[in-house]
Amino acid sequence: MYVGVDLGGTNIAAGIVDENGTILYEKTEKTRVERPACEVISSIAALVIKTIEGAGLDKSEIKALGIGIPGLVDKDGNVIFCVNLGWRDIPIKKLLEEHLQLPVYMGNDATVAALSEYELGSMKGCQSGVMLTLGTGVGGGIIINGQIYSGFNGVGSELGHIIVGKNSYNCNCGSNGCLETFASSTAIIRYTKELLEKSNKASLIYEKLNGNIDNLDAKIIFDCAKEGDAVANIAVKHLAKYLSRGIISIINFMDPEVIALGGGVAEAGDFLLNRVTEQVNKNKYYKTLPSAKIVLATLGNKAGIIGAASIAKPTYNYINLF
Amino acid sequence: MYVGVDLGGTNIAAGIVDENGTILYEKTEKTRVERPACEVISSIAALVIKTIEGAGLDKSEIKALGIGIPGLVDKDGNVIFCVNLGWRDIPIKKLLEEHLQLPVYMGNDATVAALSEYELGSMKGCQSGVMLTLGTGVGGGIIINGQIYSGFNGVGSELGHIIVGKNSYNCNCGSNGCLETFASSTAIIRYTKELLEKSNKASLIYEKLNGNIDNLDAKIIFDCAKEGDAVANIAVKHLAKYLSRGIISIINFMDPEVIALGGGVAEAGDFLLNRVTEQVNKNKYYKTLPSAKIVLATLGNKAGIIGAASIAKPTYNYINLF
Repeated sequence: MYVGVDLGGTNIAAGIVDENGTILYEKTEKTRVERPACEVISSIAALVIKTIEGAGLDKSEIKALGIGIPGLVDKDGNVIFCVNLGWRDIPIKKLLEEHLQLPVYMGNDATVAALSEYELGSMKGCQSGVMLTLGTGVGGGIIINGQIYSGFNGVGSELGHIIVGKNSYNCNCGSNGCLETFASSTAIIRYTKELLEKSNKASLIYEKLNGNIDNLDAKIIFDCAKEGDAVANIAVKHLAKYLSRGIISIINFMDPEVIALGGGVAEAGDFLLNRVTEQVNKNKYYKTLPSAKIVLATLGNKAGIIGAASIAKPTYNYINLF
Repeated sequence: MYVGVDLGGTNIAAGIVDENGTILYEKTEKTRVERPACEVISSIAALVIKTIEGAGLDKSEIKALGIGIPGLVDKDGNVIFCVNLGWRDIPIKKLLEEHLQLPVYMGNDATVAALSEYELGSMKGCQSGVMLTLGTGVGGGIIINGQIYSGFNGVGSELGHIIVGKNSYNCNCGSNGCLETFASSTAIIRYTKELLEKSNKASLIYEKLNGNIDNLDAKIIFDCAKEGDAVANIAVKHLAKYLSRGIISIINFMDPEVIALGGGVAEAGDFLLNRVTEQVNKNKYYKTLPSAKIVLATLGNKAGIIGAASIAKPTYNYINLF
């Protein structure tokens, strides 16, 4: 039995996961990122204990804990950099092991989500797969021959920061034109707000905001697009265009067997998938040759917990070369 | 002993290569692409025989022949598509084996060049390396753990067609904004011509053209830039900017240990390398963390022959997953 922890900017989710990747029991609480890192880490440890107890287990039945971090981690178990949590150089492995007296393993959240989709979901059994997590940002996970690929220095698979076009807005990474600035929920919300400002209030979107533009989210935009709203459809088309450019770059670069789309934006389902696939097929380099299957991720927000538990398994090895 | 053949749009070069990758003897002739493919292939076979004889060898001393193709090849030895030669679906392996009665192996020209740089040149011994061949087009070669990576369907490592910016001109691949439209010799020549049209003839470049703008090549542009010419420096800066964006995407994607720059454009040497490295370091995502070493390729135009011979070796295995 393993514990998988999905550490996000909003919530911390912990789950008891068996050898087959099934979540047996799960608990969630708010991250409250305004707290110092050491307090958040204490909360994670307390949540893990509560989850083990809630599942009616003894800690001795847990072999190890894995945790997915929304940022960059090194091979020694330190969080090097994490924008959403405001963390820099945090020795989270060491601190959690002190709290819990359990072996702790860690990985990037998008990467462990990709691993779970490879083991149990949309990329199951593929030889090479890339998962794009389209959420507040855009995360990337690369699996080759069943193993995570993170690169020589561990700074790879940052697929939110491959360039797909001219500047939309300046990206957190310091560059511009990044996939994240077109295909994240942040990007489509921002773009839609700009469209609404020019649209003379003639959009179905306004009816769903309860009078507050701050209520705008990706789901409202996609729902309105599905109902035929013109503004929402322009925004979806814009996102699909640039997401397809990113996918074409991924195909031209590493030509994986499967590309899976996950995260909140991908909850738009086939409505998004069909638009993206059509654009990719129309604009890819070798139009008559087979290329990556583009699919929707299937594990939803469970992917984080399952993937985190996976990296805690002793059978698991990194391909990454650092 | 092996024969390596570098098939280009202008020249065919054949070389006798020993087990250590040393070229013992070499012959070159014009490709004359206006001829039907079967005639070009007969010429390749004849050139191979002349090269073997010229080296004072008997054909029985040659174990196999490898050939680098400026286009897409499949696992059965067919050229699927090759823009510069105007070829489509040409069974070159079968035809050459009939002519020569020698085992024939083939690969993409940029990919075999990357392999030779890995075995003997600028990427020697690295765990993961990417080579960009900046010539008439931009080719890419990816080596991971000593083996070529071409992807699941064999359509990967087309690094000339990762997107780096807004449209410059429409790319041969049907897309736009591709690295090739910014960082190839074609791109810098085209961009410089546009600058010259606006420059009122006030450029050193004109002095080197012998009165004919068609004489403009990448070397003239870089030479003039080194001499301080303003127009040439704008053109080099433009190329370096977008090449650095492509390199940042490569780092963010696969984070290789080494990125090597080869091809005619890279003959500008440190003048180009320094500008590109500076831009990459300034704009990369994790500025304080190590990332790929960016180096100049060292084998020059011999890389094609040496790499082609390498894929003919029995010790050689593809990592590519098709």
